[in-house]
Amino acid sequence: MIGTPDGRPSIKLADFVTSTRFTDLPAHVVHQAKRCLVNYFAVAFAGCHDPTIDKAAGVYLEFSADTRASLIGRGQRTDMLNAAALNAMSANVFDFDDTHAPTIIHPTGPVAAALFALAETQPVSGKDFLTALVLGMEVECRVGNAISPFHYAKGWHITSTCGVFGAAAAIGKVLGLAPQQIVWAFGSAAAQAGGLVECLGTMSKSVSVGNAARNGLLAALLARVDFNGPELPLEGERGFIKVFGDAPNWDALTSELGDVWEINANAFKPYPCGVVLNPVLDACLDLYSDPAFRCREVANIRLIELTGHPLLRQRTDRPHVRTGRLSQVSAQHGVAVALARGKAGLAEFSDEAVNDLSLRPIGEKLRFIDDSTKTVDEAVVRLVFDDGTELSRHVTAARGSVANPLSDAALEEKLSSLLAYSGVVCDRKNLLQQLWGLETLTDAAVLMNTAAGAKPSPI
Amino acid sequence: MIGTPDGRPSIKLADFVTSTRFTDLPAHVVHQAKRCLVNYFAVAFAGCHDPTIDKAAGVYLEFSADTRASLIGRGQRTDMLNAAALNAMSANVFDFDDTHAPTIIHPTGPVAAALFALAETQPVSGKDFLTALVLGMEVECRVGNAISPFHYAKGWHITSTCGVFGAAAAIGKVLGLAPQQIVWAFGSAAAQAGGLVECLGTMSKSVSVGNAARNGLLAALLARVDFNGPELPLEGERGFIKVFGDAPNWDALTSELGDVWEINANAFKPYPCGVVLNPVLDACLDLYSDPAFRCREVANIRLIELTGHPLLRQRTDRPHVRTGRLSQVSAQHGVAVALARGKAGLAEFSDEAVNDLSLRPIGEKLRFIDDSTKTVDEAVVRLVFDDGTELSRHVTAARGSVANPLSDAALEEKLSSLLAYSGVVCDRKNLLQQLWGLETLTDAAVLMNTAAGAKPSPI
Repeated sequence: MIGTPDGRPSIKLADFVTSTRFTDLPAHVVHQAKRCLVNYFAVAFAGCHDPTIDKAAGVYLEFSADTRASLIGRGQRTDMLNAAALNAMSANVFDFDDTHAPTIIHPTGPVAAALFALAETQPVSGKDFLTALVLGMEVECRVGNAISPFHYAKGWHITSTCGVFGAAAAIGKVLGLAPQQIVWAFGSAAAQAGGLVECLGTMSKSVSVGNAARNGLLAALLARVDFNGPELPLEGERGFIKVFGDAPNWDALTSELGDVWEINANAFKPYPCGVVLNPVLDACLDLYSDPAFRCREVANIRLIELTGHPLLRQRTDRPHVRTGRLSQVSAQHGVAVALARGKAGLAEFSDEAVNDLSLRPIGEKLRFIDDSTKTVDEAVVRLVFDDGTELSRHVTAARGSVANPLSDAALEEKLSSLLAYSGVVCDRKNLLQQLWGLETLTDAAVLMNTAAGAKPSPI
Repeated sequence: MIGTPDGRPSIKLADFVTSTRFTDLPAHVVHQAKRCLVNYFAVAFAGCHDPTIDKAAGVYLEFSADTRASLIGRGQRTDMLNAAALNAMSANVFDFDDTHAPTIIHPTGPVAAALFALAETQPVSGKDFLTALVLGMEVECRVGNAISPFHYAKGWHITSTCGVFGAAAAIGKVLGLAPQQIVWAFGSAAAQAGGLVECLGTMSKSVSVGNAARNGLLAALLARVDFNGPELPLEGERGFIKVFGDAPNWDALTSELGDVWEINANAFKPYPCGVVLNPVLDACLDLYSDPAFRCREVANIRLIELTGHPLLRQRTDRPHVRTGRLSQVSAQHGVAVALARGKAGLAEFSDEAVNDLSLRPIGEKLRFIDDSTKTVDEAVVRLVFDDGTELSRHVTAARGSVANPLSDAALEEKLSSLLAYSGVVCDRKNLLQQLWGLETLTDAAVLMNTAAGAKPSPI
């Protein structure tokens, strides 16, 4: 039995969205929302010239109704539905975006992309923007909590399937919809929820991520003209939760609403990799900076021993990857490149890096040791050299985990480095100033003017 | 265990789509495809001025990139993605469209709407159109067969979830995509598959039906520029079939491909109602024309006894409906209106008809008798009058069932009556001539010119 909830969560969530004001948000929640946006622009810059986005933009822009909205980092303009889709895709294409720890939703992209697209067509103050962003992410992540862990394990791409509710809620808030209209927007969102894990590692993944932003925005625009939907889109007998979930956690939808904020369970990645690799890469980069390591040759490593939670081996034991995309989930590649180059950014997980033949012998020295007493944020890396020397590092809480979050400065650094990687021309200092002072802006769309940028054409 | 298929059905289906030519289609398949299109235009006319379509068009047409494609019966033009969506919605909004008996997919709408939209932007011959239509419907219905009956019973709106594959395959065929590209189109289709039964009876249902056409078309346009996807979008471990199905019937995807055609399992409704009511309405209309009935007063009926398959009672025992939409699945209303008016068209299942208070006492005389030896296409209606007179009719194969399909003339009559209902101005004779002679046309889009029509403005 999958049971039924107490009360009517669809209505309760809709009421929460319509009634919550900026002044109801705790200061730490507002600050975390801005951190989400710093990370959002960082990863959107990183992704905006990926071939996936180039191809998608080529097709989508044939269907531009107007040029009121911008594509981050591409210097192109299109209508708000297309902009919502393409910017959400850019932010997610490398899976380098934020991660809501309980669900592994990448929550900011679908919501922020929809909100910025709307904000380019009608004035939205910084406070209203932040309020809608927080509320959209709250709905998105609570819907995800209610159907986790079954939902993702079954094969749904949870960022796509839940993101559409977040975008619908956020846009509904900005448009000032009534609670009944928000419920209807949830209905049209539920009708459009989709996305499959099978598509990961291919361009098609981005279609559903873009749809989450686009279709959530569309659902709210439809609800504004009283395009109706089911009264119980989430909890109905054939509603989203029962169809996409199994043994739903009904309480997760509404318990402690307004007291516990899901945005605080959101973490930012320091590396463009599967999160289970975070402690391993932390350890390798720390070893790299150790003089005892630097005075030796990587070629003289005899054994690399990784001790971690069994998921580390299960998710990343991939010795012979051939694409940058797959190297993001390969411990063999990650350890080799971090120890050889002392870096673990996008360039280190590119097709170029994977084709660096000097790295492969290093990866072959790797051995995994499962230790289920360790958390997924913990790992030990032990190096044994040919001369018998041993060096090791034990990381107990990886950078970027909820227990050891990236600092504001580290997020700024991430933005700088991904902006540099992208080659996009953008006034980084101005963008950061606008981001950290967002609640003082009368028009949130100025951020998009700053970020629209363009990549200089090759001469 | 949900098992795995023999071979690679995604590739096998893609090969079938690319290699099948018009001359490979049996004549009866080509004729059935034209019958599907007659019915498609009939139901699209019926739906094109429904408030659902008015509201959706109002929002969607704010996002028109161009005016190369037409909306059936609305005299409006928009881009091909919007036209695909809105025309598919029109054809389905009353659930009066065709029904693939094994899956209850309404198969023509998503495929035909996408094809006509594309055909308005580039020349597509009648033969190429028919070939693509048949192949798209074949893919759509086979995907549905593989996951039925679990899929719909679980709560997915199967026309929406499978329609997107049909549209992708049909458009891929017309665009001349290679098999690998068709597989990629299936991937982007799988990423976008969605739609919930919970939304039935509300406007939000139409969003997912429109998406099936629009997003299938989009998936093929993306595949044309080598926007890639998973290699096994259907049968992969986290692919469409395993995620949306349970104990899949793998053979259904490819067995007897090219020998058995799913389009032949497609049936057309004579009444705008749940199909289980068909034999009941046949019986009532036949009774109405009986002089022994006509010389009596409906008010003098003491008992109306319906004997049928238990599904008849389970799906249609709804004594007190208050909307035209719900009256389509109410035996009480259907029997009353058919016996009182001798008709069972859209006007008889409208809000106006439901509010006709004279019908309610008739519906209250109804009694169901379950008889599981009867098929769902069979029913007995027995009337007992106050004076003891009894009249009854036994229908063994309802009109519109696969065993007793609507004749070509009945389909023409359906088109005429729904065109009249819609008030759309259209040269019906010309349209029918173009439909029955479609394989001789050099440009299938002429049909849309004929059907675009418009409803005369009220003076």
